[in-house]
Amino acid sequence: MSRVLVIEQREGEEKTLIQKHIFRPFPNTRRVVIDHLQRLKNFLFRIGDDWYFLFALGVIMALISFTMDFTVSKMLNAHRWLQQELGGNVLLRYLSWIVYPIALVAFSTGFAQSITPHSGGSGIPELKTILSGVILEEYLTIKNFGAKVVGLTCTLSAGSTMFLGKVGPFVHLSSMIAAYLGRMRTSVAGDYENKSKEHEMLVAAAAVGVSTVFGAPISGVLFSVEVMSSHFAIRNYWRGFFAATCGAFVFRLLAVFNSEQETITAVFKTSFKISFPFDLPEMFFFAILGVVCGLIGCAYLFCQRWLLGYVRRNSLTSKLLASDKPMYSALVALLISSITFPESLGQFLASRLTMKELLTSLFDNRTWWISLSQNSSLDRSPLVDPNNLWLEWANPQFTIFGTLAFFIIMKFWMFILATTLPMPAGYFMPVFVFGAAIGRLVGETVALLYPEGIAADGIVNPIIPGGYAWQGAPAYSGAVTHSVSTALLAFEATGQIAHILPVILCVLIANAFTQKLQPSFYDGTIIVKKLPYLPRIRSRDIDSYKVNTEEFMNPDIRVLPREAGFEDVLKVITASDDSEYPVVDNTESQVLVGTVKRPQLIHFLETHESHERAGPTEKENLSEGNLGEACSIEPVTFQLSTWTSLHQAHHLFELLHLQKAFVTKYGRIVGQVTRKEMKKAIEDLANPK
Amino acid sequence: MSRVLVIEQREGEEKTLIQKHIFRPFPNTRRVVIDHLQRLKNFLFRIGDDWYFLFALGVIMALISFTMDFTVSKMLNAHRWLQQELGGNVLLRYLSWIVYPIALVAFSTGFAQSITPHSGGSGIPELKTILSGVILEEYLTIKNFGAKVVGLTCTLSAGSTMFLGKVGPFVHLSSMIAAYLGRMRTSVAGDYENKSKEHEMLVAAAAVGVSTVFGAPISGVLFSVEVMSSHFAIRNYWRGFFAATCGAFVFRLLAVFNSEQETITAVFKTSFKISFPFDLPEMFFFAILGVVCGLIGCAYLFCQRWLLGYVRRNSLTSKLLASDKPMYSALVALLISSITFPESLGQFLASRLTMKELLTSLFDNRTWWISLSQNSSLDRSPLVDPNNLWLEWANPQFTIFGTLAFFIIMKFWMFILATTLPMPAGYFMPVFVFGAAIGRLVGETVALLYPEGIAADGIVNPIIPGGYAWQGAPAYSGAVTHSVSTALLAFEATGQIAHILPVILCVLIANAFTQKLQPSFYDGTIIVKKLPYLPRIRSRDIDSYKVNTEEFMNPDIRVLPREAGFEDVLKVITASDDSEYPVVDNTESQVLVGTVKRPQLIHFLETHESHERAGPTEKENLSEGNLGEACSIEPVTFQLSTWTSLHQAHHLFELLHLQKAFVTKYGRIVGQVTRKEMKKAIEDLANPK
Repeated sequence: MSRVLVIEQREGEEKTLIQKHIFRPFPNTRRVVIDHLQRLKNFLFRIGDDWYFLFALGVIMALISFTMDFTVSKMLNAHRWLQQELGGNVLLRYLSWIVYPIALVAFSTGFAQSITPHSGGSGIPELKTILSGVILEEYLTIKNFGAKVVGLTCTLSAGSTMFLGKVGPFVHLSSMIAAYLGRMRTSVAGDYENKSKEHEMLVAAAAVGVSTVFGAPISGVLFSVEVMSSHFAIRNYWRGFFAATCGAFVFRLLAVFNSEQETITAVFKTSFKISFPFDLPEMFFFAILGVVCGLIGCAYLFCQRWLLGYVRRNSLTSKLLASDKPMYSALVALLISSITFPESLGQFLASRLTMKELLTSLFDNRTWWISLSQNSSLDRSPLVDPNNLWLEWANPQFTIFGTLAFFIIMKFWMFILATTLPMPAGYFMPVFVFGAAIGRLVGETVALLYPEGIAADGIVNPIIPGGYAWQGAPAYSGAVTHSVSTALLAFEATGQIAHILPVILCVLIANAFTQKLQPSFYDGTIIVKKLPYLPRIRSRDIDSYKVNTEEFMNPDIRVLPREAGFEDVLKVITASDDSEYPVVDNTESQVLVGTVKRPQLIHFLETHESHERAGPTEKENLSEGNLGEACSIEPVTFQLSTWTSLHQAHHLFELLHLQKAFVTKYGRIVGQVTRKEMKKAIEDLANPK
Repeated sequence: MSRVLVIEQREGEEKTLIQKHIFRPFPNTRRVVIDHLQRLKNFLFRIGDDWYFLFALGVIMALISFTMDFTVSKMLNAHRWLQQELGGNVLLRYLSWIVYPIALVAFSTGFAQSITPHSGGSGIPELKTILSGVILEEYLTIKNFGAKVVGLTCTLSAGSTMFLGKVGPFVHLSSMIAAYLGRMRTSVAGDYENKSKEHEMLVAAAAVGVSTVFGAPISGVLFSVEVMSSHFAIRNYWRGFFAATCGAFVFRLLAVFNSEQETITAVFKTSFKISFPFDLPEMFFFAILGVVCGLIGCAYLFCQRWLLGYVRRNSLTSKLLASDKPMYSALVALLISSITFPESLGQFLASRLTMKELLTSLFDNRTWWISLSQNSSLDRSPLVDPNNLWLEWANPQFTIFGTLAFFIIMKFWMFILATTLPMPAGYFMPVFVFGAAIGRLVGETVALLYPEGIAADGIVNPIIPGGYAWQGAPAYSGAVTHSVSTALLAFEATGQIAHILPVILCVLIANAFTQKLQPSFYDGTIIVKKLPYLPRIRSRDIDSYKVNTEEFMNPDIRVLPREAGFEDVLKVITASDDSEYPVVDNTESQVLVGTVKRPQLIHFLETHESHERAGPTEKENLSEGNLGEACSIEPVTFQLSTWTSLHQAHHLFELLHLQKAFVTKYGRIVGQVTRKEMKKAIEDLANPK
């Protein structure tokens, strides 16, 4: 090592000598300038600061998000154009309507799955597991990246027929890039700080993923925090904030450069009356909306978990999913797209609108049933009118209420079916749109009941059903994902904050129902996918304070004394395949002094074997074979005692992302607790024998 | 115990017997109803659920906040009325102008300090210390409550002359109530969950405190989280959210009932153009505004910390502060109110406006210098015009720029001086207003430079200086408090979110400066007040990964072996006054098995003494006197190893709110680390020898 250094130094000196011979003007000025530049470089690229990586992460994700949006909108326009061009022939129109999504979905599934099986689904449940401290190898490798990008673009291009979004996959994409950047960084900066930095980058990545989809930095950070972790550091919050702001800023800036907008504004612009957003008695209806969203959310979560499990149990679908995933996707797409064909049932489902148009139309400022009753002779135009998107919902016979209710009922099961498809797809945006539809239905009903507004003091302030839609969206999506920051997302995405208190009320009520009755969407997926998972202890389970570690720990552990020799180690290592073993002071006292890793032990055995094979002179050194001397024993910084309560142990596991802890009693090791035992203990709390 | 139970049972039976004799109709129906009510009660008042306490906390704080606002506004109106009534006599007007704040401030100081010395200042630094795990007794007792409420009301009634706010004291008040409610709750529910619940309640209380001042639930939660802690649990975030929403809702509702407003809207309503909030090139000026706010923030933090220290060092002021606090307050108030007298320098300071009016006027939609140049013959009316508050800033000779710059310069040192007063007062609102003034000045300057707007494509979009003010406020206050959620506070308090990205950009830039160069306002106060404090490790201090615990631990510890007798314990206990001592297996092995509390040891000594005095027959039981048998040894769940890095140890201290940890090496105890050693090690990092 030091020799290499000396050689390098010499080379450096030689180089300097060579350089000295070349004449350059103003040596003093140049030295000063170079000196200053060097200082600037040191200041900017100091190890430990990783603002540059966070910035890069934000910008890259914004570029990807913008490019994907751009491609998808071109694809959707092409489909719309095709539908128009096909003119009179209904069969042709039907075929073009169904072939497009079927082909895209089948390709998406096939392409993504052929590259890597990890690219399916949203990615948030897996990332949540990773952030809780479990190592899921292969999940963040960069080769998933292409599969996810191409697959997701195809999925989104299938349009509102498939009713899928992009939030989840973007979180996954973002964390892949963060992991990649992190590796780049480590190669520069060395690895003292490797582990904790990796975690920090992933947390920021989740925020960037959300914020580049909606252009919403604050709620991006908060949503990712709420959904991903049980604890978080303020440090990470700031870093997430910075990265998310860079991402959102570039994302919105690109929209301006692309002449979509004149200046940086919200993604889904609304135009509600701000001076008098709502009448006080309407709070009652907002609360009802919260209850409705909460109940439908519970029903949805239950059905969704059930269907995800059923598809895996059922022999036909499980066979299809195992052997021929694209076929399964194509069949589901055929069913769904046949239903949404605009000339059959699709006319009641506003199926000609894209996801973004659906949301914009639901947030419309007008009261639909009044507008509809004023001109009842509305004829559906063959083209979607971009300034009157809501006309897609208008159906004189079926009424507005009919179409909205039909939409809610049909999309309920169609969306659940779509979530079983093994392709890259996000499930947040559909939930958000679905919630907006619920809100719109409630709002239109209230507007029908009180056409003159709920008169306070004789002033007529008509009810704005769009405001209800705008509350239903965060309430329902918050209920499904167990988060309250969806409220903030609604503010940021629409540039509207006048309804702040009712929205939060609505979200809290909806959350109260689902948090009490169902695991969240992401937790549900974790359960169904059987990923490692530490259940939450509900605050009503006060028994968790009374159950001690002694009652649920695993007392069956294999320990190695410090003076262990070849035979002892061999016996222990063949008896189990743990990754590390506790080392005790001696067999009698059983006092825990540290742990030793499995590879260390294998190495120990190997060197020992060579000792055994060695001649008698070398055998004299056999005493070196003692475990305590030959292996490096890692210290145990954390141990549970037999009296630690389940609640406390759970708290520590969550806080420190522990996977395993040893249990000691007066220093003696008496057992161990892994996530498995912890999980069982918590489940026993909820279902006492 | 069981006898009491039996008697109670018997009494119960007797009562039932007596009750049976009384005839009541519909026994079955009644039983069913009672049964259902009982179930409902069990469901609602289940132990472990504390939503009711959170709800109560929110409502109580909202009532206090509203009542205080109401009283303060009446007091301020009275003062304004007095000023008018005094008519022509300048001297009388001057006297009434200065006597009012002097009297109020002196009373506030005297009253609060006479009840308890803890009621002075904001309270956030102390609460931050408490939340980091340090026990500051007396600080949360309910007797501080009255002192703080009355004192704060007087402080606020002194008006914008004293330039003080109410956020900090409200956080303190809220946490006092939370602690009180917590004690009530514990008396009902038992204390299994006492400790952790207390902490949870305090976190929620901080959120409620902020949100009931501004009617802003989301930023209330986030601001309190950012300012108070280094880590936080999502669980607490939800609970804080719930309590803060209840508080903000009731607070705004009361304003409606009091006919201040027609419906629930923002506290400081603005009326900026939303359709085109700003032109893209303006981002450049927003960034400059961020830099300006950051630099002024640094200067402010430095001067503030210096003056706080100077006042304590200087012999005159320190004597005054020690013996005659009200006199000190009165003198400062005399100086400040003389300067702000509206007929002298006060006319350039808009000193006739209240704090709330100051903020509203700065957020004004008009471009002042244009309005001023259009009617240059503006004469100052003797009354404040509530619809043209900005006229208070208008001074034809001095121009708008002059008054704003003068305001910024004068309030800079006057506010720093006001923070040294030992009375209940908040320092957030003044900082917020100050930031708005900086923003307004920058905005007016930009509007002067580009009177036609920064034309993009020939469309004229005039610059809105109010928008700059609205960004300066969160940027400056965020910089001073080291938080980014002030951006959200600006959105929530004004009901305006169109500028979201520039505001966040501005806040982040301003924060970058102060976080790099100065401790935050609250940390600064903690340092000056010498409260226990664990400094942050900056990410650039990568040496923190290389310094091991062995290098900074305190190796000088007193241990007790398990078999310790009277003499050993006596020796150890007289040699130091630690609150707990480590217990080792035996003196030779030094293996750490647990700790024992000081009171336990004292008890052990007492019983032992009685043994010694006892007769020979009782002496046979002397073996009971062994420490390991006589005292309950508490297990050590957490220990550092000699190889633990400073960074990791710091992280664990922060995460687990540790005060002390023992250091072991292969199970042997070799030292201990307290916050003192940790702090020293971190300081050594920053200033290597």
